[in-house]
Amino acid sequence: MAESKVSQRAADNIRILSAAMVEQAKSGHPGGAMGGADFIHILFSEYMVFDPSDNSWPFRDRFFMDPGHMSPMLYSQLHLLGNYSTEDLQHFRQWGSPTPGHPEVDVARGVENTSGPLGQGHTFGVGAAIAERFLAARFGEWLAHRTFLYISDGGIQEEIAQGAGRIAGFLGLGQVTMFYDANDIQLSTEVSEVMDEDTAKKYEAWGWHVQTIEGNNHDAIRSALDAAIAETGRPSLIIGKTVMGKGALTESGESFEREVETHGQPLSKAGASFSATVKNLGGDPDAPFAVFPEVAAYYEEVKAERKQLAQERRAAYEAWKAENPEQDAKLQRFLSRELPDIDWAGIPQKAGSATRNASGMVLAYLADHVENMIVASADLSNSDKTNSFLAKTTAFAKGDFTGAFLQAGVSELTMAALSVGMALHGGVIPVCATFFVFSDYMKPAIRLAGLMEQPVIFIWTHDAFRVGEDGPTHQPVEQEAQIRLMEQLKNHSGRNSFLALRPADADETTVAWRMALENAHGPSGLILSRQDIASLPAKGSRYEAAQAAAKGAYIVEKETGGEPDLILVANGSEVATLVEGAALLRQRKKLRVRVVSAPSEGVFRNQPEDYQMDVLPFDIPTFGLTAGLPVTLRGLVGPLGEVIGLSHFGHSAPFNVLDEKLGYTPENVYQKAVDFLSDFE
Amino acid sequence: MAESKVSQRAADNIRILSAAMVEQAKSGHPGGAMGGADFIHILFSEYMVFDPSDNSWPFRDRFFMDPGHMSPMLYSQLHLLGNYSTEDLQHFRQWGSPTPGHPEVDVARGVENTSGPLGQGHTFGVGAAIAERFLAARFGEWLAHRTFLYISDGGIQEEIAQGAGRIAGFLGLGQVTMFYDANDIQLSTEVSEVMDEDTAKKYEAWGWHVQTIEGNNHDAIRSALDAAIAETGRPSLIIGKTVMGKGALTESGESFEREVETHGQPLSKAGASFSATVKNLGGDPDAPFAVFPEVAAYYEEVKAERKQLAQERRAAYEAWKAENPEQDAKLQRFLSRELPDIDWAGIPQKAGSATRNASGMVLAYLADHVENMIVASADLSNSDKTNSFLAKTTAFAKGDFTGAFLQAGVSELTMAALSVGMALHGGVIPVCATFFVFSDYMKPAIRLAGLMEQPVIFIWTHDAFRVGEDGPTHQPVEQEAQIRLMEQLKNHSGRNSFLALRPADADETTVAWRMALENAHGPSGLILSRQDIASLPAKGSRYEAAQAAAKGAYIVEKETGGEPDLILVANGSEVATLVEGAALLRQRKKLRVRVVSAPSEGVFRNQPEDYQMDVLPFDIPTFGLTAGLPVTLRGLVGPLGEVIGLSHFGHSAPFNVLDEKLGYTPENVYQKAVDFLSDFE
Repeated sequence: MAESKVSQRAADNIRILSAAMVEQAKSGHPGGAMGGADFIHILFSEYMVFDPSDNSWPFRDRFFMDPGHMSPMLYSQLHLLGNYSTEDLQHFRQWGSPTPGHPEVDVARGVENTSGPLGQGHTFGVGAAIAERFLAARFGEWLAHRTFLYISDGGIQEEIAQGAGRIAGFLGLGQVTMFYDANDIQLSTEVSEVMDEDTAKKYEAWGWHVQTIEGNNHDAIRSALDAAIAETGRPSLIIGKTVMGKGALTESGESFEREVETHGQPLSKAGASFSATVKNLGGDPDAPFAVFPEVAAYYEEVKAERKQLAQERRAAYEAWKAENPEQDAKLQRFLSRELPDIDWAGIPQKAGSATRNASGMVLAYLADHVENMIVASADLSNSDKTNSFLAKTTAFAKGDFTGAFLQAGVSELTMAALSVGMALHGGVIPVCATFFVFSDYMKPAIRLAGLMEQPVIFIWTHDAFRVGEDGPTHQPVEQEAQIRLMEQLKNHSGRNSFLALRPADADETTVAWRMALENAHGPSGLILSRQDIASLPAKGSRYEAAQAAAKGAYIVEKETGGEPDLILVANGSEVATLVEGAALLRQRKKLRVRVVSAPSEGVFRNQPEDYQMDVLPFDIPTFGLTAGLPVTLRGLVGPLGEVIGLSHFGHSAPFNVLDEKLGYTPENVYQKAVDFLSDFE
Repeated sequence: MAESKVSQRAADNIRILSAAMVEQAKSGHPGGAMGGADFIHILFSEYMVFDPSDNSWPFRDRFFMDPGHMSPMLYSQLHLLGNYSTEDLQHFRQWGSPTPGHPEVDVARGVENTSGPLGQGHTFGVGAAIAERFLAARFGEWLAHRTFLYISDGGIQEEIAQGAGRIAGFLGLGQVTMFYDANDIQLSTEVSEVMDEDTAKKYEAWGWHVQTIEGNNHDAIRSALDAAIAETGRPSLIIGKTVMGKGALTESGESFEREVETHGQPLSKAGASFSATVKNLGGDPDAPFAVFPEVAAYYEEVKAERKQLAQERRAAYEAWKAENPEQDAKLQRFLSRELPDIDWAGIPQKAGSATRNASGMVLAYLADHVENMIVASADLSNSDKTNSFLAKTTAFAKGDFTGAFLQAGVSELTMAALSVGMALHGGVIPVCATFFVFSDYMKPAIRLAGLMEQPVIFIWTHDAFRVGEDGPTHQPVEQEAQIRLMEQLKNHSGRNSFLALRPADADETTVAWRMALENAHGPSGLILSRQDIASLPAKGSRYEAAQAAAKGAYIVEKETGGEPDLILVANGSEVATLVEGAALLRQRKKLRVRVVSAPSEGVFRNQPEDYQMDVLPFDIPTFGLTAGLPVTLRGLVGPLGEVIGLSHFGHSAPFNVLDEKLGYTPENVYQKAVDFLSDFE
């Protein structure tokens, strides 16, 4: 069969399979999938370099999908490649099936990323391309690969598209080709009711190469991909004007293409006829999950050819490896996320420093020792102290990835999603930083990082009202409780989907960094102070003492002379205040007082129950102090406990004034603890 | 003095005052303020129409500032107009001062919006301009006013700028003029290290009129403002290339302009000389808070002139009012946010419907009765059921604001911020809708709405894992607990900064809508089900029975025959499951069981303590069921209580399958409650 004929048949096959999946599931989005079938088929069968027998091969080209609701198209494509069975397609959107309604990362089957919340998928892809450039700059262009992105009208509208577009253009990511499936129809309406932007011009403003084509025309797709690939110095956008619901017919045989109704429901429910449509597309309505024999045969050839291309790239790798065994050993360590030996205890820390500065000390060390770490800051490197890392490297620039720092600009969500994309690519350890209050902006990407179990490290400084003069807009109150909800939420592997670490002093900061770096299976956040904090009392090495923080909570000061009368618990800079308050309680009331630091309740609750009960036995009055909402520590003080926290927005004033005004002083701890204990008398 | 001379002096005065404030406070951002002084002075003194004796006059031109860190510029400008005292400037960033580090909305003093988190401020302004157009379309162009936006490099980079730019262009908001203070320097670096976009081209792609000028040249500013104002059919962007730290000198008299260091610290700390700078700008270093006499005199003229312009606009209003007394009465009701009589009990509801559909019924009624309501949807109107409102009106289109619906496209944060901006403008009641899981994207704007006490209503449908087939990316788990943190956080007036309302059935949905609409002092969120829910048992009128929901929590089914053995508590669709579970407990175990519905813990905790104790006395075993994290109901079950919730991400499957798999069935409630009670035996 002529290639063009079989190509058409393959695309029609994807359309039929997609429509059949949605029909069978009685829910889903057939229209877009039917429109995009031509592009995805041409891309996978003629352009992408991958190994069908080893989808996890690290040097494969990547395909990042943004519109997760178009999952039937992706699953159908990957079914032609043998990664999903017919049964998998038939169980689309059913319990336990590998074909959830929106794709979830499953590299072994060819799914590079979880998608659904629009805009993030393509931003992950830009992040992955940054990781690829980073590795190529270190190991050579032999490992270069392309990153293909697929975006829809909704993704183009999402705010984050501006960050991804700007940064990809700024960095000149020529390895990136994005197909914009412009079918002029979105979920509720035609696009024209929402938007009249000149998208081509917008991307050109960001420095992209842009083409506009008929998105269902195979030759046009090929020419555009050829031209995009030829553009090496800048990312390329192909605006494909596609036909929503391509091939859809009504019962009476009239066209049902370009109808909003086919966006989000089965064809039969939308007003089209499923069987007329299948017939129109050359299929058998009684066997809609069939793969056409000639398509199956063709895809055998495709797979062989793709494998051959992969072999050629593998050969280049082997040749390089033979010449560079040590470099290769390093590359393998990078790819396996193996950490080098790190002398954590040897990282210098200054007693009494702000934990953001302590983090800066760790970063300065890591800059010299963890060669595959990429650090980003959303225009706050001087404040979030990632400048200590930057001082030892350079920022990425157009076509220059020899450095290891990303100046993300003021675009927190983009920075987060780019970091997640770097982690998805693998080989690098992404870290990104901003103020804690702006973690609000990043939540959608943090959630997906948690769901995808990607080890991104978030540095959040200026962690409490002690931000001071910047005032309530910049003072986190509810953010710690908020991010700890992700700690409570378990991922599909049963682990905390996030680790939130708020260290109490410089040495705990080193420990928290260790915990974050060693957390290979999900994101972690370091919540750090702007202001200096007195270091906790410790006998011997302060780092060794602080090591107990790795259990999530530990006894900083143990009571003497018998059972404690009172346990004080906090994290972050409030621990130092408790230590001083405890001294007053001992001195003035002769109380046996224990002080507990709890940088992560989530980690603590993973410890053996007897350890938990040793540290925080619920039968002893327990009093918590937090700069966040009281609920932040509620789970740690137990049913008899009480928490002093902040229940209102902050105020603009120097932080030490706020400490006084809001009662974050040893004297107030003393007073409140005495009042609290009086309830037990 | 020649006007040009005094203009220069006034701008220099603003520069000196700004630098002095930061110097005195020992913290803040002088550089940007010094660069933007020329524009703000020309704008306020020559272009804006306002009444210096009545800053709250509703038909004033609006000035929305995006870069809140440039607050010294705004305060200094408003000081020249008499809205802040010298002492206020001297107490910049101090406890209790009206000059916080980042401006907080204070209309009486001329501050239209809280700013600081970049990008939102100018988006509020676009929202305000939509409100202005909405009112002008109903009452006439006599009330038309201009909306001026001020944005910096950081704001331009923020993702939300894409939403604001796209929508302002799409709607042809010719009343909007935005000044982009392009000083090429951001907090950490020069802008060139972060961005090389062609900003003019980008805004042109969105349909804006764009000019680029020397941003410190007064005549250039005037010409640009004239041209911008002449553009009536599209928003206008003036890219002003300004000089960061304009006028700054070092001790030795060298220029210290265009230095990154002056972005975020006092001049003296940045490396410049404060006194040399003040002298260079024509001031007295010993009296840096002085207003030059000729500037003071000039501003007396300016105030008189602005007042005169306001009088002319007032005269137009008076003339219209005389001819249209009924229309004016309506306008006054709009402006005071007075609600019309609403027959809440008469809004038809179908028993057993999904709460999103119940909300649709309310919206259909409100569309006919609340004439100043604007409803937006982020491309989900069919799903979030705002289509029932849309069916009775039309969507805004270019230059056409006769309808009352905003098709926001897929840009949730933008939609939220636009809605907040509408509320800030006043005269309209903004409502916006999307899926609950996407409330994550909106959090930054929700926080500012809470801080600013703006009554925006958020409709969030698809409230739990019962979203079903769409899978974990679309299934909220932690979101309810997350948004309730804002309910716990009090605003500056001491009220809950947010009301989160999750009604249990169709009638509670009507009540929740009433609560949201009557909450005039802050944002509210309606958290609604995708799936149908059996209506709660009620004697007589279901709406009247559900009225008790307005107390935040109430007894749905009271135990009979004595003290309850067990209290079951939930909200949303879990209440109906508890009602069925309670029936099993009564039938099989002869237990006295109470069922409580708690749509809002925040509202409940505001009730008199005896009411709270009547409904949920903590000495009775209390068992909660939530589709969210267990912590969602932790505060309601008390120390003896237990909560069954979800502690992991959801799964893609039909919702009734998920109910079975995850244990959200009456049978499982029965079993778990029996187990729970056995702990008390």
